[in-house]
Amino acid sequence: MQTFGRHLLMEYQGCDREILDNPEQLEQLMRSAAEAAQATVVAAVFHSFTPCGTSGVLVLQESHLSIHTWPEVGYAAMDFYTCGECDPFAGHLVMCEGLRPEIHEIMDVDRGNIDRPHSLDITDHRIEGRRPRPFAAGGQR
Amino acid sequence: MQTFGRHLLMEYQGCDREILDNPEQLEQLMRSAAEAAQATVVAAVFHSFTPCGTSGVLVLQESHLSIHTWPEVGYAAMDFYTCGECDPFAGHLVMCEGLRPEIHEIMDVDRGNIDRPHSLDITDHRIEGRRPRPFAAGGQR
Repeated sequence: MQTFGRHLLMEYQGCDREILDNPEQLEQLMRSAAEAAQATVVAAVFHSFTPCGTSGVLVLQESHLSIHTWPEVGYAAMDFYTCGECDPFAGHLVMCEGLRPEIHEIMDVDRGNIDRPHSLDITDHRIEGRRPRPFAAGGQR
Repeated sequence: MQTFGRHLLMEYQGCDREILDNPEQLEQLMRSAAEAAQATVVAAVFHSFTPCGTSGVLVLQESHLSIHTWPEVGYAAMDFYTCGECDPFAGHLVMCEGLRPEIHEIMDVDRGNIDRPHSLDITDHRIEGRRPRPFAAGGQR
């Protein structure tokens, strides 16, 4: 019985704000990300909030892919949990193409190591991209 | 705009195997966990696998609560992501009452710190409970 899984926590900042508030586009993009990761979608649920923002989850044969968005600040929080032969990092690359974040931060967590002293283990934590400079008073970005 | 969130990754080993294969009981238990955390459920999706195992997600006003179960080995992997004033740890305690794991391992991750150098930050990682002794050949547990 294979319980091992890989759980990516993804933070995207400086994203395309329009797509962050469009549940249909987000679902389409996430289905593409799941496909790139070689995962199979078995159910989907998306919910839009007032005044803006979306939460969505794809339940996968291999676990799940979720998103929560804050369009007002161009921020999205995601997690992509897969078991088996999937590659969630390939899904992350698809999300980056669609959301176009200025910064993406990823934490890669192994899970389900039930025969080891720790079942949870962080294997990577990286930040990539350009952190936007703050606006100077009266100045240019 | 408050983007800060708290994301608990929970691993439960040595659980009650019957409940791990019962999506109705799991959903009821997870709704109780969400309520204990002071979170509001906006959507739910559960899926049972062949020959056994369940994946389920509650989409919350404050993010999500997910479970993936391996009844054959008494293992469940969960994550509970909340924003705002919720307390996901209170939800973890409810899950422990229901699943009765022999071991629970928790990683507590802060998210959405978009003004800090790291948006993701681990604030706690703990293992509690008794690790079951392996069966000795012909012996007692």
